Parts: sequence; structure tokens; C-alpha cells
Amino acid sequence: MTLQRFGYLGPEATFTEAALLTFLDSRGLRETASIEPMRNAPSALDAVLEGDCDAAVVPIENSVEGGVPATIDALTEHGRLQIIAEVVVPVRFVLAVKPGTTKEEVTSFGSHPHGEAQVRAFMSEHYPDAVYLPTSSTAAAARDLANDAGDHIAAVCPALAAQRYGLDVIAEDIGDRQDAVTRFVVVTRPGPIPAPTGADKTTIVAALRSDRAGSLLEVLEQFSSRGINMSRIESRPTGDGLGLYQFSIDLLGHIHEARMAEALQGVHRATLKLSFLGSYPSSDGTVAPVDPTTTDESFAAAADWLRSSLGD
Amino acid sequence: MTLQRFGYLGPEATFTEAALLTFLDSRGLRETASIEPMRNAPSALDAVLEGDCDAAVVPIENSVEGGVPATIDALTEHGRLQIIAEVVVPVRFVLAVKPGTTKEEVTSFGSHPHGEAQVRAFMSEHYPDAVYLPTSSTAAAARDLANDAGDHIAAVCPALAAQRYGLDVIAEDIGDRQDAVTRFVVVTRPGPIPAPTGADKTTIVAALRSDRAGSLLEVLEQFSSRGINMSRIESRPTGDGLGLYQFSIDLLGHIHEARMAEALQGVHRATLKLSFLGSYPSSDGTVAPVDPTTTDESFAAAADWLRSSLGD
Amino acid sequence: MTLQRFGYLGPEATFTEAALLTFLDSRGLRETASIEPMRNAPSALDAVLEGDCDAAVVPIENSVEGGVPATIDALTEHGRLQIIAEVVVPVRFVLAVKPGTTKEEVTSFGSHPHGEAQVRAFMSEHYPDAVYLPTSSTAAAARDLANDAGDHIAAVCPALAAQRYGLDVIAEDIGDRQDAVTRFVVVTRPGPIPAPTGADKTTIVAALRSDRAGSLLEVLEQFSSRGINMSRIESRPTGDGLGLYQFSIDLLGHIHEARMAEALQGVHRATLKLSFLGSYPSSDGTVAPVDPTTTDESFAAAADWLRSSLGD
Amino acid sequence: MTLQRFGYLGPEATFTEAALLTFLDSRGLRETASIEPMRNAPSALDAVLEGDCDAAVVPIENSVEGGVPATIDALTEHGRLQIIAEVVVPVRFVLAVKPGTTKEEVTSFGSHPHGEAQVRAFMSEHYPDAVYLPTSSTAAAARDLANDAGDHIAAVCPALAAQRYGLDVIAEDIGDRQDAVTRFVVVTRPGPIPAPTGADKTTIVAALRSDRAGSLLEVLEQFSSRGINMSRIESRPTGDGLGLYQFSIDLLGHIHEARMAEALQGVHRATLKLSFLGSYPSSDGTVAPVDPTTTDESFAAAADWLRSSLGD
Repeated sequence: MTLQRFGYLGPEATFTEAALLTFLDSRGLRETASIEPMRNAPSALDAVLEGDCDAAVVPIENSVEGGVPATIDALTEHGRLQIIAEVVVPVRFVLAVKPGTTKEEVTSFGSHPHGEAQVRAFMSEHYPDAVYLPTSSTAAAARDLANDAGDHIAAVCPALAAQRYGLDVIAEDIGDRQDAVTRFVVVTRPGPIPAPTGADKTTIVAALRSDRAGSLLEVLEQFSSRGINMSRIESRPTGDGLGLYQFSIDLLGHIHEARMAEALQGVHRATLKLSFLGSYPSSDGTVAPVDPTTTDESFAAAADWLRSSLGD
Repeated sequence: MTLQRFGYLGPEATFTEAALLTFLDSRGLRETASIEPMRNAPSALDAVLEGDCDAAVVPIENSVEGGVPATIDALTEHGRLQIIAEVVVPVRFVLAVKPGTTKEEVTSFGSHPHGEAQVRAFMSEHYPDAVYLPTSSTAAAARDLANDAGDHIAAVCPALAAQRYGLDVIAEDIGDRQDAVTRFVVVTRPGPIPAPTGADKTTIVAALRSDRAGSLLEVLEQFSSRGINMSRIESRPTGDGLGLYQFSIDLLGHIHEARMAEALQGVHRATLKLSFLGSYPSSDGTVAPVDPTTTDESFAAAADWLRSSLGD
Repeated sequence: MTLQRFGYLGPEATFTEAALLTFLDSRGLRETASIEPMRNAPSALDAVLEGDCDAAVVPIENSVEGGVPATIDALTEHGRLQIIAEVVVPVRFVLAVKPGTTKEEVTSFGSHPHGEAQVRAFMSEHYPDAVYLPTSSTAAAARDLANDAGDHIAAVCPALAAQRYGLDVIAEDIGDRQDAVTRFVVVTRPGPIPAPTGADKTTIVAALRSDRAGSLLEVLEQFSSRGINMSRIESRPTGDGLGLYQFSIDLLGHIHEARMAEALQGVHRATLKLSFLGSYPSSDGTVAPVDPTTTDESFAAAADWLRSSLGD
Repeated sequence: MTLQRFGYLGPEATFTEAALLTFLDSRGLRETASIEPMRNAPSALDAVLEGDCDAAVVPIENSVEGGVPATIDALTEHGRLQIIAEVVVPVRFVLAVKPGTTKEEVTSFGSHPHGEAQVRAFMSEHYPDAVYLPTSSTAAAARDLANDAGDHIAAVCPALAAQRYGLDVIAEDIGDRQDAVTRFVVVTRPGPIPAPTGADKTTIVAALRSDRAGSLLEVLEQFSSRGINMSRIESRPTGDGLGLYQFSIDLLGHIHEARMAEALQGVHRATLKLSFLGSYPSSDGTVAPVDPTTTDESFAAAADWLRSSLGD
């Protein structure tokens, strides 16, 4: 599948656009690709499903705020979509103003609530009296400021947004956690699964049966009994009542590996619904250790043993 | 401890105030209590810690949106605070306008993003062209509308807010999920733990050791091996990096029961940090079945056996 | 495979011959079959392996003494042999003497040590001064008595042996446990596995890895996680050192069932050596309950799900 | 408790006497102790219970034959008895004859069936035509030969027995497995439990509930979840029917350690009957590794946490 037309969670100049540009660079697609911001994660995924885009880039997990519910829910609710890659980008905020504005004039600032949450310590210390005004995205805070479209005097936004909208940066890297990162996924229509690299992740969403006690435990045992580690687990309500959950889970390994294939089938049997969202190379290239009893060779030997025991 | 002064997550006229009023009625405190809205969950909990209030009411879990991160994080980050009760209230939204406004004039509406998320189907069907304008709370949408403080023509808010701010309700119960509920907790400074009623919940937050595979499994096994069920489990990032989690968990049972006390000690050993947030009566009064091998009697018999084996 | 020539653990007239006759009756083979006693379990199994017999009947488990080590070890050590049926017979001993001998003259009695162990209470009460003299089988006690080949005055033996060797029975059913039974298996060379009946057993021997803690637990979890119950588990030393074991295990279910096939492959991966000794109808016809998540249909649905996820 | 009078499983000159002498030497009791052979394991244990002996030495486990059922059953059936030490001795057989007998004259040999089983390869190779005649013990084979009390021409027995009965050894160390060992236990009436040494064993017998599936698994999980390893597990029928078992288990650790005390209480709750047979120093002095989450310190910290959470 040739990837040419990319959608991403807009507006432009957010960390999502930065992630997309990183991905394009890594594949040598920067020159040829067309990119377009989308209104929200569901729209971006819809555009892929309907063929308007070849791929979409959406945030899935933030080291400070946790999972991104809108993306997780949209991936789950859509029909078949496939994650083919992940991109992790550092989250660094700047405080930006219109050229000429002084620090003393910063009596209010705009940002997305997630952005505001991540600069709270900095703002409390340096701008204790500045009023926070929510905007629909961190980039929108910059854009609206440039366009005089909001009431805020300053914007907490990515450097990319400040630059694109011609703002002045009066403080850099103002996040309370300087190591904050966000993880994005590149999503396409179903197609060939990227070949195993030895350092892969598999993403699933499993809806538990409400009527079975210990069902989360049962799911986790499917993985642990086959030596598979999780790198992320997020609870999401199914919306059907308090205490009814589905879990969005990232696993270390690839669906083409026997232990993963068997574990996923076990989870399928134990849950109400299981959605496979993709197997793809891990962005950090870390190879997960595999126990000798759960290698593909060990599974193949067991299958041989079974055939021989059956007299086949 | 006499409870007289109550704080709650404001502003006034939200579902949180409704929950507080329900609690006061159930304890016969409506007449004597003073109540005060707080800016956010951390402020409400701070007021309790500092003695400005005797108790605070904050939302902890919503059947549509899932856990309320701000509350869970605030409860975890604060020193010792204690949940003494839970209150579950139905989440019913109305569409309200200033007296005289007609349906046709509703070209925009304000609400908190969570409120907007829950009426999306209704609004798309009946007001497909109305623009959504975010407000800081559902009640604020009503208040601002009444005060001409925003640009929205209608408010998606609780009935209580429409009534308090003198608005006209032009559509009732417009939530996409009519069975949506929110669960609130009543939080005090540490004191005597409410006595077991036979139908109790225990709330904890457990931070996993990053360096041990399968540690969530290990935590869940502490409960399952003693026949304890969970009614809620929420993952929350610790903020220290992608994939590092703490889990906010509600268990059926009371810390005064032997199986719970032993399980919690097991979790303490298996985790980096364990916070006990309280044991309190379950709002629905459901008695959890207890396996004969994990009753208090069974634990007492085992302790007797041990003493006798030790020759004590 | 036509079964005509049968070997059994001799000598003749033991409970093993009784089990063989029961089996022949159940298959309508009594008239056509030839039967021959063998010196011991290994010889009987050798005769099958070498084609001198079509099948052998050997005891595998006694309700009082436990597993029969010689049989379990012989089945394990031999190459491929297959259990095709089980027969359970009651163990009832008589006290027999040569015609004319009186009770008072019974100053000694012969029997196999297992026989002696099962009538200890009776003999202590009624013949407190009689000296026990071991014989190589319970039937040999009768035969030797008839042939004046031993020093014992009485024989503790099966009724069949007393009758065949022309002895007088002076006490019947003298076992301390009147409900004692022995379970025998019918063993053939490898061939088609008997078709599943819905009430089947599967027998395996698993040698644990010495270098892995918790490996018995790991084996049992392979079964429990797929809802498979055990009806027997026997530890047998591997002979390689204290604490090194293999386990002889009977499972409820058939290797043609998906949950059993997958569990056995899991055990194969987790152990040093796994021997499949057969799947065959359970003699009591009890149907084991199967959890909805581990039916063949559930496994087939999971396999379909996997294929569909792989885009096959 | 001063130990002076010792019983042991007779007859004299067996490996059991050798084990007893080893124990006496290790405690400096060889000079002062009186020792007496007993007819069988139950008699030896009875003598302790009734005060005729201070302690008894009985075999519990053989590296070739496995557990010694008579001892395990006798320990279980007796009231309270306590294992205070274990002794492991090598099992080395000699072939002995009356002075003057030549190799060519050895047409038969006597031994206990267990002894015969362990020299089968040697005898088949060197004395293929010699007939085996069972004796009630390996030492009895030597004694009877010396006393002309049997029909055998040679005895397969311990070196100690050949020496004591004045026989000539014509072949040494003839066991098929030269590393064979037997493990003996020293049993007393209940008294103070030997203090933990850091390298201890704990012996228990657990009777499973017949009506609970997976109950062996449940027992093993009590240990594995607290990082406790087993060094021996033996199944023994309860005698109440096919498939009903109790398990004789040796664990690495001491009942005075918190993880062991909690695990044993868990087993007590999960089983029909649990018998504690003793905690005593391991004969090989191997210190079992203890996971940081299951040290006594970790248990103490958890207990402190619980008290603090309870406001105590």
C-alpha cells in the first residue's frame, strides 16, 4: 500500500503534526506526502475508512495525562482499522505572546486543559494572577491569539505553533515534567500486517464479560502464562454502567509469533469482544526477552508432539 | 466526628451539589449543614485537610466517561484523607434557554466538554447546525447564559442549574444514555473507619513497581486468591514515563474483614506504594458473596491452627 | 485393530484376570479371545510391543494403596503404547485354606504385601497370632497353598483364586475397606485413538524441569486455565535424585477436544518430557462439565477471529 | 528435651540404623544414647508417642523408589508428632555370601524387593541365572543367610549388615544408580520447634477437599504467591476412593518465618485437613533465596501499614 495522503488530529501546528512529520521523515515520504488536519480523532479515522486519506496520525497515550480516551474509543468503535507504526515525541510547551506584549501584561492565558495541566506549577510561580481560559487545542490558543479571536493575552502552546502564527516566545520548555512525551499511532485501512522485527508491539481492546468475576485476571493470565509483557493498560468504561470496562492494552510481541497468536485466541474466548488494532515495530526498538518455553520453536515442537501423539 | 461544614466541587447547581444534598438528607443533616462550592477537586480536598471544612463531596467515576482523573489524582496525592461514604446520582441533562428564546434561535450551545459528549446524538439530530462552545462546567453554561456572560444561546446543564438561574427548559433528559450515573465520594480527615455493614467497599490506590513484570497480575491475584471482587479499576499514569501506572481500585469488602486485611498487606508487599482511601457502606447495599474458605471464621480457625502447631 | 490375544499381569486368578474378563465381556470378545498371564507389568507390555499380544491388562491405581508404581513406570519407560480402555473392579479378599484345615490351625497366612495391608484389621482381630508370610501375589498364596509350595497355612486371596485352586473359603470379604477398588487399563500398540464419547479420560506422564521453580504449578495451570479437571495425580521419582519427579496424571477430556490439545501442547512446552498414554472412555461414564469459554465451538470461534485479524 | 532412647525402623544393620548413627554422631550422642530396632514405621512412631522412646528414625523418601508410603501414612495418622531433623545417607548395596561360597555357587539371592529393584541391572549382567527370593528387609537377607534360615545362597544388603553377620562381600556398590540416597527423619513428641537456621525445611500433609476443583492448584498457589519452593511432593490416596488424595509436602523455609506462617494458614483454609509435621534444619544447608517482597521485614512493613491505615 502506497501512503500518500495523510490526515492528522488538527489543528495544524500541534504535537500531532510534529509526530506526522517525524514519521514522514523516517519513511522518506516528506516530499511526496500531502497532509491535512482533521477536526478530531473520529474524523481523522473516518477519513481513512472512507478512502479520503491513506493514513491518519492520532495521539494514543501521554506520559502525564495517560491514555487519550477519544482516540482509544474511536479506534475501538470504528470497524477495522490497523495501527502500522507508533511515534513518540517529547511534549515541550512555550509561553507565547503577540509581538510587543510584555510579561506584565500577561493577565490571562489560553491553552487546551491538558496543556494547562502540564504547566500549572510554572504558571502558578511566575504568573500567579493570570486567569486560565480554555481553548480547543494548544495550537488554537496560538492561532486565536494571533487572530485576536479570544480573550487571552498569552498562549501555552508548542514551539511549532508559536512560530507558525508569528508569536513571540517569552518562556521555553515550561512543562512541569520536562520528560513528558506523547505517543502517536499511524492508522491505515486493513492490509498486510508489518512483518515482525523482533521488537514489536501489538495493540488490542478487550471488553470484559460483566457476568464473570475475575475476568481481568483471566485476561492477564493469558499473557503471563505465555511470557508476554504489557507496556500499557488503560481502563475505559463501556458506557453501559458503572464498573463495566473494556481495556486498551499494548503487548510486547507480534501477532505472527505463536505465543501471541495463542494468547490472543485465549483472550478472545475469555472476553465479550476482542479487537485487534495492529502489530507494528516498537519505536524504541527494545527487544523483549522471550522465555525458552514460549519461543516459536517451542510452540512448533509442541505441535509436532501433538501430531505425533495423534498418530498423524 | 460531627460533620457540619461541607465543601463540594463547584460551581453550585451541578450534579455534585445534588449528590451532597442527597447525602445530607440520608444523614438528616440538611438543616444543620453549611455547604460551599470549591474551585476544583484539589481545593475541596485541601479545605478538608486544612480544617476549613469537615467533609468534601467530589465525583470519582462516571458511567460514560469513566474515572474522574482529577479526583483520583488529588485523593492519591494528598496525605491521609478518608472516604466515608459514596453517593450515586443519575446524570440527566436538560437543554435550557433564556425565557423567550425559541428553538429556532438555538444556533449555539454551551456546556462542559463531558456534558457535550453525553448529548451529542440528541444535539446532532435536533440541532445539527448548533455550534458547541465549551464552558468550565455544565452549571456555568446556565449561569453564564443567565448573566449574558458567554456567546452561547442555550445551555446543556442539570435541571437544578436551569431552575436556579431562572432559565426555561426546552428539552428534558437529553442524554444519549438515559441510564448514565455519576458516583461521588464523601471525604473527611482520617478518623474512625465506618463499621462494616456486610455490604461495603474499600478504595485503594496502588503504584506498581516498574521493574517487575506481571505486577498488575500479582496485585489482582492477592484479591482473587482470597475471593475478593473488584467493582472498579482505573489505570492512571504516575507521570514518570510512558507505561508507568498506578491503579485506583474499588473492592467489595471492608478492611476490618480478615480476608481484606490480609489481601491489602499482600498488595503492600507487592507494590511500590499503596494508599488506603477508606472502607465505607456500598450505596446499593449489595452483599458480596463470601467463599467459605475466606470468611472471618475460616481465618480465625487457621490462626488457631497455626498457634496450636507452634505449640503456643 | 482386531483384538484377539490378550496378556495380563499374572499369575492367573488375580483381580487382573477378573478385570480382563470384565473387559472381554463388555466387548463381546470372551469367546474368541485367548488370554495369557505374564510375569510382571513390564513383561506384559513388552509382549504387546513385540506383537506377541494384541493388548495387555495391567493395574494402574488402587483406592487404598494408590498408584501402582510398576505399571506407571513401565508405561512411561516403554516406547509408544496406548491405553484404549479402563476397567474398575472391586477388591474383595477371602481367607482360604486347604480342605479340612480348621480355623484354629491357621497359625500363618500368605499373601502379597498389598493384600496383607488391606486385611490387617480383620486378621489382627480374628487371627492375632497368625504370622504373615509374603508371597509374590495374592493368587500365588492360593496356588502355593494348594501345591504345598509354601509355609503358610491359609491364603488371603481373591475368591477367583480360591475357587480355581480348590481351596475352602473360611471368611469372605475380609478387607478393612469394603469399598476398595482397583483400576486397570487395557494397553495396545499405537493405533487409532478411540473416538470421543463425551465422557473420556486422558492419561499422561510429565517429567518436570529440575531447574524451574514452580513447574508443577505451571503444569496444573495449563489445565485449570482451560477448565480441565484431573481425576488422578501421582508423583513418581525420576530416579535422578531426591526431589526430582515426574507426574502421572489422568485428565477428564479427550485429546481430540481443542482445550485438551492446547493444554497438552502447553504442558509439552513447560516440561522436560511429556508422554501421551491415551484418551479413552471413562468407565463410569460421567460427563465433565465444560465451561462455555473452553468448548470446541469457543476455540473454533477464536481461531476464526485470529484468521480474520490476520487478514487471511 | 534430652534425647536418650532411640527407636528405628528395624531390623538392625539396615540403612536406617546407619542414618541413626550418623544423627547421633552429629549431636555427640553416640556414647550416651540407647538404640532399639522396631518392627515397622508405625511401631517406631508408637514407641515415641507412648514414651518408650524419646525419638524414632524412619525413612521418608528414596531417590529411586520415591516416598516411603508406610512412613508418610504413619506420620499422618498418628496424633501430633514432630520431625526435628533429617538425615540423608547414600544407598550402597553389596553382594555377600557365607565364607567359602564361590561366585559360581550363587544360584539364588535374597533381598527386600526394593533392594532387588535397585540391583537388577548388575544381577542380570553378572548373575543372569540367579533366582531372586524376597526377604522382609535387606538386612534380613544377610541375617537369614548367616543363620541358614532361608533358601538363598547370597544376600543383596548394606555393607553394615554383611559385616555384622560375618559374611564375605564378593561385589561392592552394585546398585544400578550409584548416586541413590535415602532420606530419613528424626521424630519426637511435640516440643519446642528447632530454631530457624536460614536453611530449613517444613513438612506438612494436606488432605484436599474432594468437592472443589483445582484444589491442588489452590494449595500450590499459596506457596508460589509467597515465593516458597517445594523440595518434595508426594500424592497419597486417602483410602476413601479412587482419586481422593492427600499430599505430603516438604517446603523450603521455617514456620517461624512470616511468609511460611501465612502460607500455611492459607493452606489450612483451602484444605480439608492440614497436618504440620515440623520445621527443621535442611541436611544440605542450602539457603533458599527469598524474594524481597516476602521477607520477614516486608511482612512487618505491611503489618505496620495496616495498623497505620486502621488508625491504630
